[in-house]
Amino acid sequence: MFDLYIANKNYSSWSLRPWVLMKVLSIPFNEHVMPFEGGMGESHATFTRFSPTGLVPCLVDSDAEVAVWDSLAIVEYLADTYPEVWPHEKTARAWARCASAEMHSGFGALRNECSMNCGVRVVLNNRSAGLNNDVARLDTLWQEGLQRFGGPFLAGEQFTAVDAFYAPVAFRIQTFNLQLSEASLAYVQRLLTHPAMEEWYQAALAETWREPMHEHETLKNATLLNDYRAL
Amino acid sequence: MFDLYIANKNYSSWSLRPWVLMKVLSIPFNEHVMPFEGGMGESHATFTRFSPTGLVPCLVDSDAEVAVWDSLAIVEYLADTYPEVWPHEKTARAWARCASAEMHSGFGALRNECSMNCGVRVVLNNRSAGLNNDVARLDTLWQEGLQRFGGPFLAGEQFTAVDAFYAPVAFRIQTFNLQLSEASLAYVQRLLTHPAMEEWYQAALAETWREPMHEHETLKNATLLNDYRAL
Repeated sequence: MFDLYIANKNYSSWSLRPWVLMKVLSIPFNEHVMPFEGGMGESHATFTRFSPTGLVPCLVDSDAEVAVWDSLAIVEYLADTYPEVWPHEKTARAWARCASAEMHSGFGALRNECSMNCGVRVVLNNRSAGLNNDVARLDTLWQEGLQRFGGPFLAGEQFTAVDAFYAPVAFRIQTFNLQLSEASLAYVQRLLTHPAMEEWYQAALAETWREPMHEHETLKNATLLNDYRAL
Repeated sequence: MFDLYIANKNYSSWSLRPWVLMKVLSIPFNEHVMPFEGGMGESHATFTRFSPTGLVPCLVDSDAEVAVWDSLAIVEYLADTYPEVWPHEKTARAWARCASAEMHSGFGALRNECSMNCGVRVVLNNRSAGLNNDVARLDTLWQEGLQRFGGPFLAGEQFTAVDAFYAPVAFRIQTFNLQLSEASLAYVQRLLTHPAMEEWYQAALAETWREPMHEHETLKNATLLNDYRAL
């Protein structure tokens, strides 16, 4: 049986990736939400109880006595048993893996300047050159995938791991109102209205935890417009 | 047939990973060394001729008309055909993928403060807290793998992709003379004396290209002791 340890749904972009993939592919798992507490340092100490790096997400496969402590490694671990994690066709699979790996190690400005905070809407006070580059690259990459593999998902007809890897970006785009091409914005809407994403979003809104560091991250260079979270 | 596009062997840590893996596993490929020229910006423009992100390494599989533009995606692409890329045993394979993914997205201080520059030896003027944390984590991770899977490589008897992912770290440790546990330093020596690593190192020393940004990276917080590269 799989146990998936994740953090606050409102903030934890890395957690969303395996969670939404497993939901969409109907891979059963026990969910363990471990809220960030007293700043990242304290959470880190709590998280080391189940995760070797003190980071989430962490997938524990109790049948195999394996802990898988990285989002991309979780995806490949699942793919060994569930081949539908990646597209079946070789070219689409290679592209999907590249695009996922590019998000895993890249898009630093997008991740730093537009942190995931599902329940709020803000306007950026200014945009760095790095953010503009990241958004341009994202738009190019998404349009390429949608066009080349025919949509409606990034690597073809089915929702696969590459969509899971970019799922947090859909929430970031909604929160920060980032502008993209029509094709890319339509893809964002498909992600945001997917039942698994809706389920995550409603759970994020229902959370009443507030973590000061994550709140600061969102507002360090932005002005709050709306906050839809439960009080 | 595979074509592997890489940059200067002296500097390009990301290039080393698929190169050394393919060498060790005797996967045939044509090597294309594309030196960094006129700063990273100009190289980027040149590299976009074969790599969608303008970054190296990039693997082109001419039989399948596929370009694979990320080091971890290259590894997984190869693994579809060559299962020996990862350990066969499930637990070791999961661990190896986690450790590789952790390097792929992490160890930022180690990568920024101790850039790969194979042919030189330096002493750091001071060490940041982040670097100390990264080195401590590296040492823990390596000792865990070596102990748990019995060595001599990180996930057992065979050199697999996780060793390829940490191969550049062996050169960084040599250049910056970083201190680790005895078990970890012995592993560094096994990597450095591996024939494929020796081949890369000799080719790096023979390069006469110097790229100002990479040279600056190495010496921004360090004092030069030796430079073994060809003039």
